[in-house]
Order: sequence, then C-alpha cells, then structure tokens
Amino acid sequence: MARIALPETGPPGMPGLLAFRPGSGAALAGFMQHLLRAPGPLPPAWREAIGAHVSRHNGCGYCGGVHTATACAVAGDDALAAAVDDPAAPGVDPRLAPLLDLAAAVADGGHAVSDAHTAAARAAGWDDGAIHDAVLVAAAFCMVNRYVDGLGAPTPTDPAFYRRAGERLAAHGYLPGPTAD
Amino acid sequence: MARIALPETGPPGMPGLLAFRPGSGAALAGFMQHLLRAPGPLPPAWREAIGAHVSRHNGCGYCGGVHTATACAVAGDDALAAAVDDPAAPGVDPRLAPLLDLAAAVADGGHAVSDAHTAAARAAGWDDGAIHDAVLVAAAFCMVNRYVDGLGAPTPTDPAFYRRAGERLAAHGYLPGPTAD
Repeated sequence: MARIALPETGPPGMPGLLAFRPGSGAALAGFMQHLLRAPGPLPPAWREAIGAHVSRHNGCGYCGGVHTATACAVAGDDALAAAVDDPAAPGVDPRLAPLLDLAAAVADGGHAVSDAHTAAARAAGWDDGAIHDAVLVAAAFCMVNRYVDGLGAPTPTDPAFYRRAGERLAAHGYLPGPTAD
Repeated sequence: MARIALPETGPPGMPGLLAFRPGSGAALAGFMQHLLRAPGPLPPAWREAIGAHVSRHNGCGYCGGVHTATACAVAGDDALAAAVDDPAAPGVDPRLAPLLDLAAAVADGGHAVSDAHTAAARAAGWDDGAIHDAVLVAAAFCMVNRYVDGLGAPTPTDPAFYRRAGERLAAHGYLPGPTAD
C-alpha cells in the first residue's frame, strides 16, 4: 500500500508519483530525460545499466526492474542484465564494470567514493566528463529509489510489466505526453 | 581536491559542478528551484531545513552549511538552525519535527521509512501533499549530497561563505543567471 493516496486506476511505481504532483513531476522527468538521453560520453544503455545497478544495490525492486529492462531494450539485447546483477561476472564489458563499481560506491554515500574508484574508471579509458556523468546518474537513482520506496509506491510483480516499461522508455524516454503511456 | 578538473577560478561546491556540465546543470537547477520554491504546503524555509537536516545526516558539510544558512535567511531568523541540528531539541516547532524525522528515514533508505513516520506527520496536521513533498525534498538531497561529495567538490571552511550563499539563494533561488552569482 502506498503511504499517500495515489489514484487506484493510475500507473504503478514512479509514473503514479509524478502524476500525483504534476509540477514537480514534470521538472523531475525533464531532468531524468536530460540525464539519461542527452548526448554525452556514456551510451544511454550504459547510463540505464548504472541506474539499474544502483537501484538493485538500494533494494528498489521497481526501479531495478524497470531500468534493467530499459538498458536491455536500448541496447537491443539482454546482455546488460548480467552486468547489472554483478559487474564482476564473466563477459561484462571491462569499460562498464568500473563505472558500475563507482556507482555502487556513490549509493553507499558520497564519502564512500574513493580515488581508487575514479582511478579504475580512468584506467578503463574514461575522462572527467564520463566520471561526472556516472556519479550524477548514480546519485539521481539514489533519489528516485528513495522517492518510490519511501512513499511505498505500488511495485508490480509481473515480469511482463517491466519488459513493457523498458520498451516504452527505450522508445519514448521520460517526458510526459501522449506517447508516454 | 575534486576528483574531476573543476575550474580553479570557479565557485566551490555545487555551482562548480553545475557549471562543469551546463546542460544537466540547468536541468538539475530547474528541478531544485521547483522543488524548493514552487507553491506548496511546506513553507520554503522548512523545505530548506529538511534538505539541511538530510545533508547533515549524510555528512555533507557543503550542503549542510549552505542549506542551514538558506533556511535561516528565508525564514528571516536563525531559529531553524537548532531544528536542523536536532529535531528533538526544545523549542523546535512540533509541526516541523516529524517532517525532519521522516526526512532522516528517507536518507537511511526508502525501506527505512515506516508507516509510523507518516503517521507522526499526519498527527501533526500534514496531508498527503506535504508528506509527498517532504519525501521528495529529502530524496533530492540524498542525490545532491552524493553528487558533491562523490566528486569531491571543494567545501569552504569560512562561515561567511555559507552566510553569503544562504542570502543569495534566499534572494535569487536556484536558477542560473546574472542574479545568481
């Protein structure tokens, strides 16, 4: 049960929260759209994987499910799901793994990030811009995970829900509108 | 030392990070402006106090200093500093204290929030909209605290820096522009 009266006929998870307060919802959606889709050094599928890994780390089932599915839908295959589960798993791209480790440190707290995390990312070829973006994506998911679970937003259990959500976010992004539902 | 090459002549803390990436910086500033200043059930000074309390809880000296000062500057007196330090202190407004406790739970994690936290806020007279806004403000500061400390943004030690930052944010808000520096 949600801790605030969300419309029973509305969408579960984050979209229901954004609709509850359209003003802050639109501002937050605009920020997430920029963060996850604007041109930048990190491919959007990897930004989604970073968000999904942070969400799993934070125990947010809704965001973990949605953004794992979105990462796979944006990439066009399901290989990123293994990286989200475990950056040290065999076959994870060696340029992605240190970003996922950096992101998990951000989730543990700003002071949990060490120079070793950023050094590992630089050793994998990433520059300041990529490190900045990975930290901000990770930090933003620490916000949305707390928003969803702190308010007890409904979390579907049907795997098909997450597959559909991932396909929709891959195709249409985060901005509200007639194509987003 | 910052973990990315921020301009040495630029502002410390959060403004330096926002300027490092103007695109995401503008989107994030717009979201924070809406969250902390748009009309809503929580007075802006109390939203700032919630953000400052979360920042202290997360050990973010920069955000704790800036937003304690901003809360006091918006309120027009320094009484909110004691509430930020300790919601259980004598003299803290009994309608503010349960919001600060709820915010600290959000900082501990989405699953650390219990129905007891929201029940205490309701007993103090707050409705769903206020609870929503308190949770989202607290969650947003969990993001910015990690952004600032995760990237090792410079944190001034001079108390006058924080007083000036609070006065500026009280007068001009979060949107970049000629009045914001």
